Amino acid sequence: MRGPANCPLCEGREFKTPPEVLSYRKNGRPNEPGWTLRVVPNKFPALRVEGELSRQGEGMYDKMNGVGAHEVLIETPAHELSLGGLLEKQVEDLFWAFRDRINDLSKDKRLRYIILFKNHGESAGASLEHTHSQLIALPVVPKRAIDEIEGARKYYEFKERCVWCDVVRQELDDGARVVLESDQMVAICPYAPRFPFETWLLPRAHGSHFENSDIATIQNLGAMTRVLVRKMEKVLERPPYNLMVHTAPVQEASMPHFHWHMEVIPKLTKVAGFEWGTGFYINPTPPEEAAAFLRDARV
Amino acid sequence: MRGPANCPLCEGREFKTPPEVLSYRKNGRPNEPGWTLRVVPNKFPALRVEGELSRQGEGMYDKMNGVGAHEVLIETPAHELSLGGLLEKQVEDLFWAFRDRINDLSKDKRLRYIILFKNHGESAGASLEHTHSQLIALPVVPKRAIDEIEGARKYYEFKERCVWCDVVRQELDDGARVVLESDQMVAICPYAPRFPFETWLLPRAHGSHFENSDIATIQNLGAMTRVLVRKMEKVLERPPYNLMVHTAPVQEASMPHFHWHMEVIPKLTKVAGFEWGTGFYINPTPPEEAAAFLRDARV
Repeated sequence: MRGPANCPLCEGREFKTPPEVLSYRKNGRPNEPGWTLRVVPNKFPALRVEGELSRQGEGMYDKMNGVGAHEVLIETPAHELSLGGLLEKQVEDLFWAFRDRINDLSKDKRLRYIILFKNHGESAGASLEHTHSQLIALPVVPKRAIDEIEGARKYYEFKERCVWCDVVRQELDDGARVVLESDQMVAICPYAPRFPFETWLLPRAHGSHFENSDIATIQNLGAMTRVLVRKMEKVLERPPYNLMVHTAPVQEASMPHFHWHMEVIPKLTKVAGFEWGTGFYINPTPPEEAAAFLRDARV
Repeated sequence: MRGPANCPLCEGREFKTPPEVLSYRKNGRPNEPGWTLRVVPNKFPALRVEGELSRQGEGMYDKMNGVGAHEVLIETPAHELSLGGLLEKQVEDLFWAFRDRINDLSKDKRLRYIILFKNHGESAGASLEHTHSQLIALPVVPKRAIDEIEGARKYYEFKERCVWCDVVRQELDDGARVVLESDQMVAICPYAPRFPFETWLLPRAHGSHFENSDIATIQNLGAMTRVLVRKMEKVLERPPYNLMVHTAPVQEASMPHFHWHMEVIPKLTKVAGFEWGTGFYINPTPPEEAAAFLRDARV
């Protein structure tokens, strides 16, 4: 849907979405104007919270029903702004809202994994123009999260150190792939990235669960995300992109081997047969070059 | 590059590609007109055969140089045809060429895995309009192949049966997801597919290595691929698509637990933040519906 004329996420059209589950407001009552950020169930959800979780076989196959939650985080009442065009506090509020929703949703013990993601631009999968993020809460820990956690566990068993803590240390020593750093966070173009200008944001302090981060870290994550998006908008001419927060499964205790982080992937290349067939990615842009471009961009 | 005017894959412009490594011809000498299928090194290769394979560390990271091969299989001298528009024998020849190239490349013991893939249409990653496939030979077994082989090994250890042999049996019994079947092959929309209209072609007889298939199977793979592509072109209005052959690592002995197969993925949905973050795929089209549409399409 293009243009603000019928946008269901704009201020004044609160009736066009399912009733909100969270809002931050200057004034007004729930589902009325006056909000600065609003979280609503997705009108076309991939999963729903109602119903029992059931698992069954179908011959050799396994299936389960789609118990879970799928919510939309509307980052601003204004239609025409991008994430990079928001105030620092507004971007920060996106991450506070994610924390608040994790704390609420994780009371439902069936929900085991919660992901925050943003699709910006049509070719990155966005179907609404008005800037927003989404969260999905799943009744299983997804494949990619298991791969990442188990890979990190093996490293930890071998080294007795968190792999991401080691990455942060080596990248700060080296410097060539660092885009931004602060007392709390670091943004890097990772070694051997899948995509041109792929960038990761990691907290310097070890922590497996995003929702347990301290105030300064979440504030800084907001500020750094805003600067990174503005830099990408400048260097890559407003690219479509995906953003994902990888955090530990919500029902599990804190993990010495997993370190939450955020990935930002501009959509500049096409995923094709080779990538689908191998899980390997051909990337024409060295991360050192991407980091230098982003570091030097003035915003 | 659009239109035949400067197409480097057209007959008569053989000088525009690196010298051919294989051709099937009615007449003419290598690198001259007269061919029906031609295999040439990619002019912009992801990997090259020259040089020693070296592995080294860079702090905590590992790297190796890009030893391997990257070749283009030009399926027809005619510019304007799609794979579905070729004669049965021409599509069959694509698979004979893949077999011939595997048998040649696998003499280089550094090369451990060879994938055949096709990107059709710009949004599926094709940069040339003239119909062609590609192969890449790698000095390592890629992540996705390992995942598939190891998953199948676990099933085999538990059941003492090949998981794909079981899939073929259950799908033929059930019938709802079968698109095409013959004495040698079966085409199905798999249970829980990642993408709408995702279709797999599997040989009925167990075999881990594509290159060891018998003549009738390779002939039938060509015929069935052609019909499947024609059906997809009709039902989905000439969609972009990716095609990949998954076969066992070339230097390894035959595996009771792995069963080579081909995947065809029309590009109808966008891979976005949720998919990148979880490795799970939201697919709005049940495979039973997709299979019925494809089965019923008259071509």
